[in-house]
Amino acid sequence: MSSPSAAESFPAHTSAASQIFTTVLSQGPLTRSEVARRAGLSAAAVTKAVRPLIEAGYLVEDVDEDARPALGRPANLVRVDGGRALFIGVKVTGDKIIGVLTDLCCRILVARYVPLAARDPKAVLGSAAELVRELLIEADGLGVRVAGLGMAVSGDVDRAEGVVRYSPFLEWRDVPLAELAAMTTGLPVTVDNDVRALTVAEQWFGAGVGLSGFALVTVGAGIGCGLVVHGKVVAGAHGVAGEIGHVAVDPAGPRCHCGNRGCVEAIASDDAIVRQVRAATGVQVADAVEAAGLAHDGVAGAREVYARAGDAIGRGIATVANLLGPERVVISGEGLAAYDLFADHIRDAFATAAFGSAARCDVQTRPLPFDEWARGAAATAIQSFIRSDANQHLRGAALTQPA
Amino acid sequence: MSSPSAAESFPAHTSAASQIFTTVLSQGPLTRSEVARRAGLSAAAVTKAVRPLIEAGYLVEDVDEDARPALGRPANLVRVDGGRALFIGVKVTGDKIIGVLTDLCCRILVARYVPLAARDPKAVLGSAAELVRELLIEADGLGVRVAGLGMAVSGDVDRAEGVVRYSPFLEWRDVPLAELAAMTTGLPVTVDNDVRALTVAEQWFGAGVGLSGFALVTVGAGIGCGLVVHGKVVAGAHGVAGEIGHVAVDPAGPRCHCGNRGCVEAIASDDAIVRQVRAATGVQVADAVEAAGLAHDGVAGAREVYARAGDAIGRGIATVANLLGPERVVISGEGLAAYDLFADHIRDAFATAAFGSAARCDVQTRPLPFDEWARGAAATAIQSFIRSDANQHLRGAALTQPA
Ligand SMILES: [Zn+2]
Ligand SMILES: [Zn+2]
Repeated sequence: MSSPSAAESFPAHTSAASQIFTTVLSQGPLTRSEVARRAGLSAAAVTKAVRPLIEAGYLVEDVDEDARPALGRPANLVRVDGGRALFIGVKVTGDKIIGVLTDLCCRILVARYVPLAARDPKAVLGSAAELVRELLIEADGLGVRVAGLGMAVSGDVDRAEGVVRYSPFLEWRDVPLAELAAMTTGLPVTVDNDVRALTVAEQWFGAGVGLSGFALVTVGAGIGCGLVVHGKVVAGAHGVAGEIGHVAVDPAGPRCHCGNRGCVEAIASDDAIVRQVRAATGVQVADAVEAAGLAHDGVAGAREVYARAGDAIGRGIATVANLLGPERVVISGEGLAAYDLFADHIRDAFATAAFGSAARCDVQTRPLPFDEWARGAAATAIQSFIRSDANQHLRGAALTQPA
Repeated sequence: MSSPSAAESFPAHTSAASQIFTTVLSQGPLTRSEVARRAGLSAAAVTKAVRPLIEAGYLVEDVDEDARPALGRPANLVRVDGGRALFIGVKVTGDKIIGVLTDLCCRILVARYVPLAARDPKAVLGSAAELVRELLIEADGLGVRVAGLGMAVSGDVDRAEGVVRYSPFLEWRDVPLAELAAMTTGLPVTVDNDVRALTVAEQWFGAGVGLSGFALVTVGAGIGCGLVVHGKVVAGAHGVAGEIGHVAVDPAGPRCHCGNRGCVEAIASDDAIVRQVRAATGVQVADAVEAAGLAHDGVAGAREVYARAGDAIGRGIATVANLLGPERVVISGEGLAAYDLFADHIRDAFATAAFGSAARCDVQTRPLPFDEWARGAAATAIQSFIRSDANQHLRGAALTQPA
């Protein structure tokens, strides 16, 4: 294969330079003066950071014909050349692995799926390697190198160490996924919690662009939350953060897999809803789709389960708002398919439980299909690539190149 | 009066320079190379920032005789000259106003109290102005100018606007306190929520020094929480943050003054404890001290009230840990006087409700008397003084100098 996947140094060696590049990446094209203003840095700092990035082809400067003044020099716009480097993002779900090939601007070029036969680390790594191989062939066809691989896994993930500490869903404990994947694929690897990865993508390229405080709440198989505070995704001192699913909203509520009672996840996750709808209606619904079907048909008891789930989610979001006061909360996840069943309850519970002006937080919904979660994983790889302080695992990279 | 209180420009005009000064202020004395390492900046940036600060007398450089190498130049230590500027911090409680005069290192030089006859803005401003006048006379005696006044008030405070949006305790709504106090005292004024102010003091000069994620939980008349995330105190997009008191831990719990049920504050504040102890024992205890006395005497029912309060506080702290993963949580406040009555319950509830490795968070207690709260207010004034982006209100300053 001709696309070189070995690590190449990105020419932004200070945090100011990374910040300037990130500003152009997520908010560009921008004039240099606007970059300086938004990054809170001097024009001199921008000039110094931009030069090597233009020389290395990561940034380009175009003349903005629309902004051409009647007299004098036209305003130049700085933007990222998305085609300068490619990235692969991988998201593991219960029955398949989703992989995307993106450009440097995190635009999806190719999306691929492989079925997952088993959930043990070896099986997942094998399938992921197969998917990465396919995507590397696509990159090869484009003649652009793949500069990093991001992998998103649910659960307690230590990005700094590249270790999946505990994923209840995969039944993994202390799996050094970044190191294993770097050895298998030959790429620099970043491993992160899937919701945090999606939050990075939303912060840089989605509903969180330009916001210093922002929360992404995902509803579905689990109830997750990615938090951006002071412009950065919260990782937690010990790898745990954003666990809105385990905010206990009712000490008399159902038992949660974490051992507590009345966690949001024990009331509002897909499994919890299925269990409660079965108990309330006596109908042995197979999954969340069937449960939502009963509620839509107006079957007694089923609607109440969604009402209670919406109430729990709304209280969880209010807790986030009361503690952190984000500018915006985005609700997403596969659970959005049944959103009409609990939207009002989420809103009402949020409005009731939000303290004072915390209620002014902008609560939105936004569908983010699984491709977007894989894109989130690619976003973490892009983040690692452009930030010298971001955590990626290079061990094995450039040693074992896939054939 | 000879101590000039008009605003003087602090010679740190970039965020890097403020950051360097803050690092020396909270962690110094330090060598220049250690300042660079801890601030994450280049040696050149430190040199550039330090020079004008030394010239203006805010920093001094001493030879560290202990660190003198056998050969070559001794290591120089950079430290803040605390005597270079003075600050006043004011904290309003139910029956008095506490004021402190501090130096630039936030060391308390003088502490004074004035009784509070009424809680309306005019009465509070009048008493605060009297206190400030006394402290300005003390400063005059020292021959050092007072560079700023910080005021700490409980409730929803918009520091950026200098407005107390809502203080249930004082029964204030939308009081432009910073502007009023600046006109009354002639000083640049910073107004902040009292718990956030105390958190600034702890972050810079107390249990939070050097931590990027940290929470201060205060227990007493109210249940408050100051949060430091990514090295900065969380203010909230709309002025609300850290409202651990209004995290609902039991939807069947007692009604809270915020309108909800089962908030931590509705179960564990002094008032809530007094109410519940009266109900449980039939004894009309007058205050939290008497309530704790009954519990210490082993009166049936009283201990259970504290157990329940400890449980609610522990759950609230676990919620903070699950969402933010701080390195440390410090529990303080006047409620610590009864800490033995609920310490075990706080710890147990925290351990049970903390998700995964969030339980590894270091939970400590630390007594912080009211003087420390006033010192917190002074810390916000110091913060405003040294940070160009911090919010202080200069309107009226230098116009109406107190006689
Ligand atoms: Zn749970
Ligand atoms: Zn409340």
